[in-house]
Amino acid sequence: MRPSQRRPDELRPVRLTRHYSRHAEGSVLVEFGHTRVLVTASVEDSVPPFLRGKGQGWLTAEYGMLPRATHTRNAREAAKGKQSGRTQEIQRLIGRSLRSVVDLAALGERQITVDCDVLQADGGTRTAAITGACVAVHDALAKLVADGKLAANPLRDFVAAVSVGVYRGTPVLDLDYDEDSDCDTDMNVVMTGAGGFVEVQGTAEGAPFTRAELDALLGLAERGIARLIEIQKAAIAA
Amino acid sequence: MRPSQRRPDELRPVRLTRHYSRHAEGSVLVEFGHTRVLVTASVEDSVPPFLRGKGQGWLTAEYGMLPRATHTRNAREAAKGKQSGRTQEIQRLIGRSLRSVVDLAALGERQITVDCDVLQADGGTRTAAITGACVAVHDALAKLVADGKLAANPLRDFVAAVSVGVYRGTPVLDLDYDEDSDCDTDMNVVMTGAGGFVEVQGTAEGAPFTRAELDALLGLAERGIARLIEIQKAAIAA
Amino acid sequence: MRPSQRRPDELRPVRLTRHYSRHAEGSVLVEFGHTRVLVTASVEDSVPPFLRGKGQGWLTAEYGMLPRATHTRNAREAAKGKQSGRTQEIQRLIGRSLRSVVDLAALGERQITVDCDVLQADGGTRTAAITGACVAVHDALAKLVADGKLAANPLRDFVAAVSVGVYRGTPVLDLDYDEDSDCDTDMNVVMTGAGGFVEVQGTAEGAPFTRAELDALLGLAERGIARLIEIQKAAIAA
Amino acid sequence: MRPSQRRPDELRPVRLTRHYSRHAEGSVLVEFGHTRVLVTASVEDSVPPFLRGKGQGWLTAEYGMLPRATHTRNAREAAKGKQSGRTQEIQRLIGRSLRSVVDLAALGERQITVDCDVLQADGGTRTAAITGACVAVHDALAKLVADGKLAANPLRDFVAAVSVGVYRGTPVLDLDYDEDSDCDTDMNVVMTGAGGFVEVQGTAEGAPFTRAELDALLGLAERGIARLIEIQKAAIAA
Amino acid sequence: MRPSQRRPDELRPVRLTRHYSRHAEGSVLVEFGHTRVLVTASVEDSVPPFLRGKGQGWLTAEYGMLPRATHTRNAREAAKGKQSGRTQEIQRLIGRSLRSVVDLAALGERQITVDCDVLQADGGTRTAAITGACVAVHDALAKLVADGKLAANPLRDFVAAVSVGVYRGTPVLDLDYDEDSDCDTDMNVVMTGAGGFVEVQGTAEGAPFTRAELDALLGLAERGIARLIEIQKAAIAA
Amino acid sequence: MRPSQRRPDELRPVRLTRHYSRHAEGSVLVEFGHTRVLVTASVEDSVPPFLRGKGQGWLTAEYGMLPRATHTRNAREAAKGKQSGRTQEIQRLIGRSLRSVVDLAALGERQITVDCDVLQADGGTRTAAITGACVAVHDALAKLVADGKLAANPLRDFVAAVSVGVYRGTPVLDLDYDEDSDCDTDMNVVMTGAGGFVEVQGTAEGAPFTRAELDALLGLAERGIARLIEIQKAAIAA
Repeated sequence: MRPSQRRPDELRPVRLTRHYSRHAEGSVLVEFGHTRVLVTASVEDSVPPFLRGKGQGWLTAEYGMLPRATHTRNAREAAKGKQSGRTQEIQRLIGRSLRSVVDLAALGERQITVDCDVLQADGGTRTAAITGACVAVHDALAKLVADGKLAANPLRDFVAAVSVGVYRGTPVLDLDYDEDSDCDTDMNVVMTGAGGFVEVQGTAEGAPFTRAELDALLGLAERGIARLIEIQKAAIAA
Repeated sequence: MRPSQRRPDELRPVRLTRHYSRHAEGSVLVEFGHTRVLVTASVEDSVPPFLRGKGQGWLTAEYGMLPRATHTRNAREAAKGKQSGRTQEIQRLIGRSLRSVVDLAALGERQITVDCDVLQADGGTRTAAITGACVAVHDALAKLVADGKLAANPLRDFVAAVSVGVYRGTPVLDLDYDEDSDCDTDMNVVMTGAGGFVEVQGTAEGAPFTRAELDALLGLAERGIARLIEIQKAAIAA
Repeated sequence: MRPSQRRPDELRPVRLTRHYSRHAEGSVLVEFGHTRVLVTASVEDSVPPFLRGKGQGWLTAEYGMLPRATHTRNAREAAKGKQSGRTQEIQRLIGRSLRSVVDLAALGERQITVDCDVLQADGGTRTAAITGACVAVHDALAKLVADGKLAANPLRDFVAAVSVGVYRGTPVLDLDYDEDSDCDTDMNVVMTGAGGFVEVQGTAEGAPFTRAELDALLGLAERGIARLIEIQKAAIAA
Repeated sequence: MRPSQRRPDELRPVRLTRHYSRHAEGSVLVEFGHTRVLVTASVEDSVPPFLRGKGQGWLTAEYGMLPRATHTRNAREAAKGKQSGRTQEIQRLIGRSLRSVVDLAALGERQITVDCDVLQADGGTRTAAITGACVAVHDALAKLVADGKLAANPLRDFVAAVSVGVYRGTPVLDLDYDEDSDCDTDMNVVMTGAGGFVEVQGTAEGAPFTRAELDALLGLAERGIARLIEIQKAAIAA
Repeated sequence: MRPSQRRPDELRPVRLTRHYSRHAEGSVLVEFGHTRVLVTASVEDSVPPFLRGKGQGWLTAEYGMLPRATHTRNAREAAKGKQSGRTQEIQRLIGRSLRSVVDLAALGERQITVDCDVLQADGGTRTAAITGACVAVHDALAKLVADGKLAANPLRDFVAAVSVGVYRGTPVLDLDYDEDSDCDTDMNVVMTGAGGFVEVQGTAEGAPFTRAELDALLGLAERGIARLIEIQKAAIAA
Repeated sequence: MRPSQRRPDELRPVRLTRHYSRHAEGSVLVEFGHTRVLVTASVEDSVPPFLRGKGQGWLTAEYGMLPRATHTRNAREAAKGKQSGRTQEIQRLIGRSLRSVVDLAALGERQITVDCDVLQADGGTRTAAITGACVAVHDALAKLVADGKLAANPLRDFVAAVSVGVYRGTPVLDLDYDEDSDCDTDMNVVMTGAGGFVEVQGTAEGAPFTRAELDALLGLAERGIARLIEIQKAAIAA
């Protein structure tokens, strides 16, 4: 039995609140259960130096966690003067995941910056961030179309992410904090709407995992992400 | 006529949402119109080195703004590796303001850390932060009483803050971004429930201001803060 | 009775030594009693990026304190690798104060950098710095006129600053360290020669202050600054 | 045909030179083709603060690349004043991989620090580092046994790593730089001697990858790592 | 002919103003011509961690240059967030030089921190700093004796420094800025009152120098430093 | 008797392995006994901003030590976020030494960056680095000639370096770690093939040194460097 009482293949309640912020071109408050991440997508009419004059755009992501998003307070990264290795790893993952579904050539010399700020953490902040960011980026790109700056939305597909893990011997979907802390194997999977894999990151927290466990986890993730993409589509249609 | 159509002595709609975060001992989402700040108050059972063994507590504040809280995106301070002078000035102001109403001796060797993170900015983020922080600190201290760790709440009085300024020749209360950008004189005032001044910070943005203008601004601020303290009391009573 | 034996409205002996440094375009060693600040004004023929091509100049200030300017040694900010919040707050205040009396359009695309370095501290370093900086900036601008680069001195008015506070119940002018450490309310006021207010920054160190105390402090500051501006004028005439 | 002329399942020549450095308790110069990494394992008789008094040890890893290990010179991280996100990601991976095979309780209150410095890079530096580090850690732990400080070597199993990828439609093993730069999918796999998975990190560089491709890559990695572990065993037996 | 019109073996006018600062235990304003350095010696009753419990003291030095001490303004190191290599090199030199004449065992578990801040630079700031620091340290140590904390002054000898160089083919003593900028060889020499060498640092700015030139420079330095030590003795006797 | 059993004027075995790295334009693994430094010389077709458009080149050096190059592990400078004063002092010395023998005007608007990374330290790392760097720079410049970019090699002379010291009363050449730790006076000397001095840096570690000792040390260094330059010439001829 999971601490959350969920079935092994059951997601937490997922909520995507679009247009949360009045300034950003795209913004989504994404909730996976008690995990709550504010995602904004900002459009700038310039690209980083390494891309200037190449006629294509760029998308990058930053991630942060408010100091008291967690059970006990963590030091503020701005006050410490550096971002942790964990933060950098996550923001690199979010950026790669989103770039996999954006046609950067069609975007033109513009940059989309995705900011993912965790207001409250209960496990799965990076997967919630990716899932919400897809909708925020969609909206920011749609605004470029609406404003007559692009002929068509350069978002080629949806992308969503979920965590899976082996909890007390059972593969389970979408770990919350209590489950995550007591899990042997933890894997984050990022997939597109077409069912392709963008990222697979599995780590043995305790004992190494077997090929059979890995296969079971991948299967759970495939089904969970398909459900998340339905939720994204419904949010955009709303 | 103000851009916001408000009367000169009219506050924006103020909303204090208590218990916004499930982890912090006290938390308030404070809104002054479109300005939206998440304030958490965290309790730790230790004090900074300079106070160890002195039998008293401490309260400190940190302030941050999400990169896209504003009209155009600002660089993330954690990524730049340092907090701006403006950020440090604001967090020092918030800390001093709150310490003026907390009985630090009665708190014992504990530290309250107030985190004020601006989710959306439309002028007056520091005054909204102080106003919300008073309630968040109240709640965090009330929890210490409820948990039997303190006999009485060490909050001695309420404290709230508001901005005032001379907009096109007229003294006005609670400037929003449009007013603030076009204002000759800008003043932030922090006062207690008993009507005492804790901080007065006035700056001539354009021409220097006269003693008469200063007096008019102080009068407006006194009335505005009295109203904010009523709102704090109603929130706590709710 | 004040520890310094001064009357409540009495300034410390103020000394302005012009041309202290042979390299800077303007330089003043300013002394308010034992407080001793070396101020230099440096002229550069370029402006910061945000002003390029706008046909106007800029003035900025930096502030530092030698490690042993104080009773006990403070860590060197260059060695710590960052400037404190206090330092940044003070240098922002000095810059705003001086900009209020310089016609930046008349200055043309040049930058004045004011460096205020405290050689010895005994209270009131920021107010001494502003008072000395006005003369140093005057001299640097006068040199531009003498060199035929400007037709007239873009300094529109004088600006000076003083601290006031409530010491054991009595409002007093120009606090030294002993008075400042034992003061209930501390206020820094910056005014022009024409009698306009540029900055008012009052802080309750202990109990909040009343409107009557605030009014009394403002009155003291007005008279003190008028006297400081006479001293500036005499120094320049010398 | 691979640029390196190797068969799809063929490793580059792998060389493990033990005792490369005279000071470190364990040291290995590991070469995967032209990729050359110097790994040292240092033993200290203390643990980080979060483990003090818990009766167990710790293992951590650091990674660096000499500025001209690569085709063109990269800025030195010590001169830039910070480690890149990539560096931090890699050193966290190396640390987790090695900890999965060391019995930290049996190690006692000691810390092993693994330093992996890339002298020459030609793809696969992190997998070479993990593979060499296993031997360096073995030797450092064996020295603790030889010195009578431990009764038995706390290394519970071998651990090695390899990269796999889809190169022009074909899954291939152990990518060199030319292959890596032109690869659709890139995966790093870390496994133990017993055949358990410790880490699986797959990224779609271009198009997303299918479950079938993922399965093929995992199969290649399993066989490649089995071969690397034979090489480790032979090196230790030598 | 030297730009300064001095004879090859002639020092600039040297002035040592003791007790320049009222807070520091020892303080000297040292002038070598237009070079002006404020040196303070601060005493603390503790030593750095690496010396705790060893029953001996320590002496360390820090060096800084005010931004406009020079012909054109240099960026403030505190604002840049780091000390330059030059600054670090100089402060290490000053510290070593002073430690060579202080009996650290006799000092007991105390630290002397020497701060050398250049108010105005005209060549030879490091040699002026060392020469002034010897007197400031003497005075700080004398105060420990006067306060009954030490039985005798642990200063074992005097130490002073001077620069020498080959200017247009002629070895000259005590280079000012104009000479230094146009010099083939530049050497800083630190010696004790007893005539022993503490540091010799010679650099070929242009063509390499010969052994004969080196010998001539050392001879000049020996005579110059003997004269500086007479000046130190006179200052202390005053 | 020296700990190393060497005669007072005997160098350690010196080995220069050219072309150690396949990517750098010049690279040498230099060994002075157990001291082992990897030197690379990288060519870039641009110069630092202060030299742009002046038609001359530049040479700069960086120095680093692997964390476990030494008897006990040192913290990694990239992880600490700053280079030590010692590191900066050494890399400035290496840069100056090499620039003294390169015709920067003949180099054209190119920069040579010399990276000296200590793989194993046993005293004399900076002198080994300079000695190896001369050969690496030679090779990088020779490649520019071979590639038809320069008509002649701009290396004007050889340059090499050695340490000398007074060990238990006897002047000795090329100190290893054991000798260096127990030495009264330590001097690093850099000379050209023509016998000119480029740098002389002598420090009294314990008692000050006499002019006679200084003369003896210089004589030893002259002979040692002559031998090192023969070794460089032989390596290049090989």
